[in-house]
Amino acid sequence: MQIAKVRGTVTSTQKESSLQGVKFLVLQFLDDAGHPLAKYEVAADNVGAGVDEWVLVSRGSAARQIIGSEKRPVDAAVVAIIDTVSVDNQLLYSKRDQYR
Amino acid sequence: MQIAKVRGTVTSTQKESSLQGVKFLVLQFLDDAGHPLAKYEVAADNVGAGVDEWVLVSRGSAARQIIGSEKRPVDAAVVAIIDTVSVDNQLLYSKRDQYR
Amino acid sequence: MQIAKVRGTVTSTQKESSLQGVKFLVLQFLDDAGHPLAKYEVAADNVGAGVDEWVLVSRGSAARQIIGSEKRPVDAAVVAIIDTVSVDNQLLYSKRDQYR
Amino acid sequence: MQIAKVRGTVTSTQKESSLQGVKFLVLQFLDDAGHPLAKYEVAADNVGAGVDEWVLVSRGSAARQIIGSEKRPVDAAVVAIIDTVSVDNQLLYSKRDQYR
Amino acid sequence: MQIAKVRGTVTSTQKESSLQGVKFLVLQFLDDAGHPLAKYEVAADNVGAGVDEWVLVSRGSAARQIIGSEKRPVDAAVVAIIDTVSVDNQLLYSKRDQYR
Repeated sequence: MQIAKVRGTVTSTQKESSLQGVKFLVLQFLDDAGHPLAKYEVAADNVGAGVDEWVLVSRGSAARQIIGSEKRPVDAAVVAIIDTVSVDNQLLYSKRDQYR
Repeated sequence: MQIAKVRGTVTSTQKESSLQGVKFLVLQFLDDAGHPLAKYEVAADNVGAGVDEWVLVSRGSAARQIIGSEKRPVDAAVVAIIDTVSVDNQLLYSKRDQYR
Repeated sequence: MQIAKVRGTVTSTQKESSLQGVKFLVLQFLDDAGHPLAKYEVAADNVGAGVDEWVLVSRGSAARQIIGSEKRPVDAAVVAIIDTVSVDNQLLYSKRDQYR
Repeated sequence: MQIAKVRGTVTSTQKESSLQGVKFLVLQFLDDAGHPLAKYEVAADNVGAGVDEWVLVSRGSAARQIIGSEKRPVDAAVVAIIDTVSVDNQLLYSKRDQYR
Repeated sequence: MQIAKVRGTVTSTQKESSLQGVKFLVLQFLDDAGHPLAKYEVAADNVGAGVDEWVLVSRGSAARQIIGSEKRPVDAAVVAIIDTVSVDNQLLYSKRDQYR
């Protein structure tokens, strides 16, 4: 999985019918120091992530290992909203600090 | 998924028989500011995307999660024609504006 | 899929038994202007592509969506010999012109 | 598989329900000389890897070929804790030496 | 598939139980002129490749299309020991010449 930050949304009317009701988020990938990378992914979201939150994104067939999404043509999904990231015994990110 | 712009088409007579009738589009990938990236994909199209439209492209096994394409040897498909892309609370793209 | 040009062949005697009889082509990837990229793939060929022809190559599990190849350990296959590539309403490549 | 070093952890409360109880490690990829690459992956860990240990990480659908993880939306997993890496007949890494 | 050269081995005691008995090789990727790329893969080997031999490596789910490996968490496998590579009608590599 990669660490990413929710940056925005994509909407679409004309699409594969199995994608009806799927929420698409624009995710900016972050490096392991928390800095933005020049890489993004539009991912299906089922966990209710909001703008600026850090999330884990799974890509490939993993994105369809979600109840109701098994047969959707998606190759990326938000699978978790991150509480904390610790690297080298230091707290790199904490959701609680982010929003207080 | 990645955001891409329809740039052209590929035609082929001599191909895997399961690809008969599949429309192949040349898609130029865009970054999250809407600028073209030096990256393209030839994708199967089932949603009827036209030149210059922005679309969502799914890659890998996701491209076969489409009725009738389950057993086609395709690794990329247009899954949605984009109406809007919003990033950092700003409207990056709107299909309506694009075509008025 | 990516657009690629047939550059050569790979032969092997000692291999997974399911690969007996599979023809392996060396494909040079091309960018969307038709220029060679510093990227290649060795792909299984079932459509009979010849040297210098432009082809579509599918990678990943798509390469096994071919009758007889379902259980072969291949991650790339030639799925079509290209007749034409059109980008921005211009003909980038035509097999007929190439060989006249 | 890639060679990676355990750098840290990611925690999450709000996630896909199938991810309950999964431990997420931040892995730094290493090159074949043992130097850190500017590339990381957050991977599920079932083998009990600890900080600074070298591990093998599998990505894609391989990450779900683990008992109990078959239907989890994960695209990376630690599959082995490395004892030794030998390249060009030289011992590049030995877990025993690392910890004595 | 990619062309790679066998450079070394990885050993592990503490690993997914399904990986017992699997031999892991360190493979250096080569470009289509036979020069080493700054890219490697640790791959399962079932064909008996030896140091300095050129091999074909398959990645992704292809690595599990091998008898006995269907449920192993591996994302790369040696699938063939290369006899010859010919590019632009020239012999780039011949195993026989390599070892005489």
